[in-house]
Amino acid sequence: MVKQVRAARTRQALVLAAAEAFAHDGYARASLPAISKRAGVSAGALHFHFPSKDALAGEIETVAARRVEELAECCRSAGGSALEVLVAAIRRLVVTFATDPVVRAGFALSGDLSRDGGAAVLDWWHDWVRDVVGQAQRTGELTDGVSPEGVAVAVVAATVGFEALGSRDRDWLSKERMVEFWACLLPRLSSVPGRDPGAIEGEALGDRDPESSLAGL
Amino acid sequence: MVKQVRAARTRQALVLAAAEAFAHDGYARASLPAISKRAGVSAGALHFHFPSKDALAGEIETVAARRVEELAECCRSAGGSALEVLVAAIRRLVVTFATDPVVRAGFALSGDLSRDGGAAVLDWWHDWVRDVVGQAQRTGELTDGVSPEGVAVAVVAATVGFEALGSRDRDWLSKERMVEFWACLLPRLSSVPGRDPGAIEGEALGDRDPESSLAGL
Repeated sequence: MVKQVRAARTRQALVLAAAEAFAHDGYARASLPAISKRAGVSAGALHFHFPSKDALAGEIETVAARRVEELAECCRSAGGSALEVLVAAIRRLVVTFATDPVVRAGFALSGDLSRDGGAAVLDWWHDWVRDVVGQAQRTGELTDGVSPEGVAVAVVAATVGFEALGSRDRDWLSKERMVEFWACLLPRLSSVPGRDPGAIEGEALGDRDPESSLAGL
Repeated sequence: MVKQVRAARTRQALVLAAAEAFAHDGYARASLPAISKRAGVSAGALHFHFPSKDALAGEIETVAARRVEELAECCRSAGGSALEVLVAAIRRLVVTFATDPVVRAGFALSGDLSRDGGAAVLDWWHDWVRDVVGQAQRTGELTDGVSPEGVAVAVVAATVGFEALGSRDRDWLSKERMVEFWACLLPRLSSVPGRDPGAIEGEALGDRDPESSLAGL
């Protein structure tokens, strides 16, 4: 049992170290010796858990997809309208880009041409956004004439852009940029009469601490 | 003179071949021998023009920045309101991602962590978008209360996202996605009374052929 716990910890440390190395140097430049050193693990232990760099990247994508899924569902189960859920989920995702190298690396790997591999996280994210926006339309929250597909396109493209831009310049992952983004987009989407879109932002972005409810992820 | 023309052609062929290789394999995986082979040029000739892969990448960024600048200014000089200029420029940029490997590689290199280097194209693009949106505000085209900074954030993040997503899935660079994107965002931005935002889209996206005026770039 102690052995299993230790093995799980080693695995976690390797995934985190690899994500940090990928985020810092890109997939192609990150080396396995540097990753095992960063994780404080021997080269043998690394190879025992992950036979190749590609296997490590695959594990990062799996863990990242699971965390994004949990984050998104956590926003959904917190209640609120579909648009509130959407705003909260994107805010939390961008905060997570800044704080969780595994999630950021999962998104970045999906678009990293130096690696063959799927874009599972992106596909899942696009589906989820489409689903929530579709729900907003069904419940009459979406302004008449706004196409749910168009909203999903704008939101998914922007999310991927925030991650890519944030990898060079942390300002892109700041709360201020997120507020500016939603202040631009949200009033177009929300049909709720008398509902100040700023209020949705405030609740989703600031008044509740987005990190606190993510502590368990 | 003939020698100079030949040298310029070799240089151009190398830049194009490198951009295609970077777009296909990512910067880190693309090899100089593969690039010189793709360009139909000897290894010696490659090294004569570009001492390193990094020098090739730098040249791609310079050429890409110049083309994006020309594209943007061509949209501006074609006349129309500032928002029309913005819509047209982004449409043309996304078309160009699909058709010009040098411009696409220029954007991708800016966010490629496997290479140290600037994000000159992105910075220029952000400044340009901010400038046009500022102009839209000054001329009263922008809806009251819409922050120019917020529009620039949404538009720049989405542009970078379109490029990153399009590198895996060409649908992201299609006219349909662009129409959906603007149909979502534009009605929020435009204050022009009685002006159907669809008309701006139509003109900028379809009625004029965006490629034709770019032939000289």
